[in-house]
Amino acid sequence: MSDDTQAGQSVEARAISPGVVDLLGVLAYGELSAFDRMSEDARSAPTVAGRAALSAMAAAEMGHYAKIERFLAGHGMDVEEAMRPFIGHFDTWHASTAPRSWLESLVKAYVGDGLAADLYRAMAGWLDEETKGLVLEVLADTGHSAFAEREVQAAIERDRAVRDRLTLWGRRLLGEALTQAQYVVAERDGLAELIVTGTGDLAGIAALFRRLQQAHGKRMTALGLG
Amino acid sequence: MSDDTQAGQSVEARAISPGVVDLLGVLAYGELSAFDRMSEDARSAPTVAGRAALSAMAAAEMGHYAKIERFLAGHGMDVEEAMRPFIGHFDTWHASTAPRSWLESLVKAYVGDGLAADLYRAMAGWLDEETKGLVLEVLADTGHSAFAEREVQAAIERDRAVRDRLTLWGRRLLGEALTQAQYVVAERDGLAELIVTGTGDLAGIAALFRRLQQAHGKRMTALGLG
Repeated sequence: MSDDTQAGQSVEARAISPGVVDLLGVLAYGELSAFDRMSEDARSAPTVAGRAALSAMAAAEMGHYAKIERFLAGHGMDVEEAMRPFIGHFDTWHASTAPRSWLESLVKAYVGDGLAADLYRAMAGWLDEETKGLVLEVLADTGHSAFAEREVQAAIERDRAVRDRLTLWGRRLLGEALTQAQYVVAERDGLAELIVTGTGDLAGIAALFRRLQQAHGKRMTALGLG
Repeated sequence: MSDDTQAGQSVEARAISPGVVDLLGVLAYGELSAFDRMSEDARSAPTVAGRAALSAMAAAEMGHYAKIERFLAGHGMDVEEAMRPFIGHFDTWHASTAPRSWLESLVKAYVGDGLAADLYRAMAGWLDEETKGLVLEVLADTGHSAFAEREVQAAIERDRAVRDRLTLWGRRLLGEALTQAQYVVAERDGLAELIVTGTGDLAGIAALFRRLQQAHGKRMTALGLG
């Protein structure tokens, strides 16, 4: 059909390792479940502009999802199969961190997108060039987060108590995410191997988690929190 | 910044008529509210594949919304202002046609997208070239509707009673939509003028509504209904 066929695929789809399939499965379901939560949270927006902004963030997740789905299909893998092991963990995270206000929704969207971007950027370096290209493309900042920053900063300027509550909220989001991430790594040998090989030794996972926590802290500071 | 600046805009944004602003306002809020409903309905999908497919349809609406927002901004208009007069009518339509099942959701997404496409395609011929280009671009079939066709056709093949219920559902969707559309035209002089001028005489609105009903009938047939 096109140059893509020659360049990227043969009749026999090229195999990708179980760890990479897992990684893309986590990424894909992360996008799909983020779409789900953000689109629901958009409904509680105080303004039509806010509703449109969070809806646009949600929609961007589906654009990413479509890219991962196509990539996996090009390697003979089904995105649903790849996502299946991670559905429960994501759903548990979302259920345990259901926002109770518009600002909590915004912080969650911002923190969740940022955390995912940090994680995948860290892992991109361990991947083959093709998969790395996909991951970096999917995580390219869509510019939507600026909206969340503006809204949160404006709200905490007006009310110190709001700032304190959102700071605690941000910590909880991270804590619950790391809890689920640890379960995932413990359950999925391929993914654990990818991380251990990538970081170079057994302490690698702990080091990776520490880096994610530090990046989260910087992000909270950028929001005016923490 | 780019060639766009020279070609499309001067420092003083070019004015567009109140009727065109209304038309784009209706189109924009139609997209935003369709996103809202589809993303909510996606949550009741029986499979992850179905959930992803309806989520992708919802996300496509936000891509269209962003184009309309940019176009209006380029003409010095705010999308929220343009949408405001139509929010109530759309919300009433959605509230009066809340799907009670996954198949009703799919039929609604399919019929709603199709009805919007027919309406705007009919009106595109009356617009200046630039606005016409935007409207046709926004309405280009994204290929998502094939999913709804497959799912609905498979379901009605298995169960005749389902077919009958969905046929009635399709009629109700159209009836409620035309009711709201008539209110909108009665309230918005600019939009009514656009339609009367476009169709050539006062009988034009009735003729347009008839054509929409005929196209709806064909669409129902394509779904295996009606």
